[in-house]
This record gives sequence, structure tokens and C-alpha cells, in this order.
Amino acid sequence: MRVYLAGPEVFLPDALEIAAAKKRICAAHGLEGVFPFDTPPQVPPAERPYWMRIYLGNEAHIRSCGALIANLTPFRGPSADAGTVYELGFMKALGRPVMGYSNAAADFLDRTRAFLGLAARARADGGWEDAEAMGLEDFGLADNLMIDGGIEAAGGHFVRIEAADGRRWHDLRAFEACCARLAAGEDRAAAPDLRPPAA
Amino acid sequence: MRVYLAGPEVFLPDALEIAAAKKRICAAHGLEGVFPFDTPPQVPPAERPYWMRIYLGNEAHIRSCGALIANLTPFRGPSADAGTVYELGFMKALGRPVMGYSNAAADFLDRTRAFLGLAARARADGGWEDAEAMGLEDFGLADNLMIDGGIEAAGGHFVRIEAADGRRWHDLRAFEACCARLAAGEDRAAAPDLRPPAA
Repeated sequence: MRVYLAGPEVFLPDALEIAAAKKRICAAHGLEGVFPFDTPPQVPPAERPYWMRIYLGNEAHIRSCGALIANLTPFRGPSADAGTVYELGFMKALGRPVMGYSNAAADFLDRTRAFLGLAARARADGGWEDAEAMGLEDFGLADNLMIDGGIEAAGGHFVRIEAADGRRWHDLRAFEACCARLAAGEDRAAAPDLRPPAA
Repeated sequence: MRVYLAGPEVFLPDALEIAAAKKRICAAHGLEGVFPFDTPPQVPPAERPYWMRIYLGNEAHIRSCGALIANLTPFRGPSADAGTVYELGFMKALGRPVMGYSNAAADFLDRTRAFLGLAARARADGGWEDAEAMGLEDFGLADNLMIDGGIEAAGGHFVRIEAADGRRWHDLRAFEACCARLAAGEDRAAAPDLRPPAA
């Protein structure tokens, strides 16, 4: 099965090395990793702007894949990279399996409070808000509930570990756990009679 | 047409007032606004956790709507709210019209540089990177290219204005512009022979 490798690694200078490492891990689990830099199955028209060709290529990649694994490690703020989150929602709507992982283990509330610093304020009801009085989610999740919920609704897993300092974008243990669970899920999908009835 | 009103206003104390104001603007353009707090068309099972019922309700809302307007004003970082971005990608994959707006007018590059402060570093090639050597997108867009690209690919519009201080979450001029463009798009959809041929 082709698996789209969503994540902000595309912004790293060694993105191609990470792509190769992820593809090797995929192959070890019987999966074919597809990285955003790969040549898309439909090449976008040359007259479109460069950024739009990237968009169209990524959308074509996602449509060509049977599943998606998203690197949801917090990126320039308490939440995951916006492009990766877009792709996660896109694949969920296509009805295909999605997995996510984060190399930051803390709950979303704790990370958001750390991000806001002194701007985080305790509410009388025990909740938290920011300087604009906007509430902080407090569900013990890894990110915004639409992210955790989408993965859960797809039957996927959101794997969290705490990477060592400086290894945040290169520790692939949580990614590998996603590959293993995805490969196991394929086995379950091949035996649908073992699944509980739909609610 | 039912239009899903995606955005981080759900975190504000006066979310219901904003929802009512948005619905009034929708109605003035012949649209029916659907807010995340509305009762979803399929009520999620009571035994699921509260956060999962919110997720399932929002997904049911989105599936019940013919279009989506996303408030993509930057939220706790240089990009839009993660839940909103997830919903944008979801609706794009359903193949329905999506519109977006931001009450911050600056380009994504400028906002990301402002967010990073002294951690933003100039590269020899003229580009920019953060303290982890991760590149900054520089396409003159409003946010990550997957967001601008998804709206563009859907035939939508990403409307940017600069709201006055303290009006960031309450200025609805850009939202209204999206409603007007969406309503006009419905007219075009009713006359498909006026559309240019697909590429």
C-alpha cells in the first residue's frame, strides 16, 4: 500500500535524507512511502505558479495513496504544521486510514500554556484562557480535538513520544510505530468480520 | 445553501453572538450559516467522550453543508487555527466550494519572521530559515501553500484585510466578502457554460 508521508520535514535542509529513511522503514513494514518531493502521478500544468504546482502535486499524491502518516510534532506554535493538518483532514474525508505522531509528548493544554507563558490566565471555573479571553482546550489530547478526533474516527492512532534535545525532527521511533500499526490494521481490514458493528 | 462556519471563534466567550452575526450576514446573501455549536444533523453516541462527540458533530455538520467559509486569521502562531485548517482540507476533499479569510493582511513570510523574531536567519540564497534551519515559505501567500492552494484549487477566494486593534476576532468585513463571493459563485455554478474549460 502507498502511504503519504505528511510532515514539515520538507522545510529541513536534509529533507531528502529523512524521506529516504522513512521510505526504508515503510518498506520494512510492507508499505510504500510517498514523500511530497516525489514526482506526482499527475504532473501539474507548467503554466501554474510554482507554489500551486506544489499544491496540486501534493493533492495528487494524497489521492494516489491508500493511507497517510502525519508528523504532527508542534511546529512554530503549540499545534502541528498547518500544511500537514490540511492534508490529514483531506485524507480523512477520502475515507482512508490516517495515523499521526508527535515527538513532543506533553498534552496540548500544557504545551499551549507553555507557549503563552504569562499570557495564560486561569479562569474561575478551573479552565484556562489566553490574553484575548479565548479558551484553551483541556481534553488530555495531543492537539486540537479535530486532529485527535479525525485520527480516532478513522480508526487510526496518534503516537506520542518525547524526542531527545536536537532530535525533534529526526527521531523516527514514533513514525515507525505508526507504520507497524498501519501494517497491522491492514490485517484487520482483510478480516472485516472481526470488526465490531458500526454504531 | 448551507455553509459551515469554520474558525477559532468557538474559543471566545461571546462565540454565540459572533455565530448569530455571521448567520445574519449569510442570510443577507441567501446562505444558511451553520456554526459548530449548532445541533448536528446526526447526534453522536452519548457513550463517546465529550471531545469525540464534538469532533463527530463537526464532521456531520461539514458533510451536511454545501460550502465552507474558514476564518484563517493567525491563531497562536503564524498560521491559522489547526482545527479550522483540518476542516478546510476535509471540505476540499469532499469537492465542495471553500472560501477563507484572514483579519491579518501581511504575507505569511512577514508574519512568520515577526513570530520568530531574532530566531529568523537570512540564508545566503536570499531565503529565510528558523533556528532549526527549517525554511520559511516565501510565495507571497497568506499562509502555508496547502491552505492557499486548496482554496485556489476549489475555485474559492482567500480574502485578507487588516482589522483594527482589538477587532481581530470581531471584524466581519472579510467574512462578508467571502459570503458575497460564494453567493456569486453559486450564480456561476448555475451557468456552467460560462466557465472556462478545465485544464
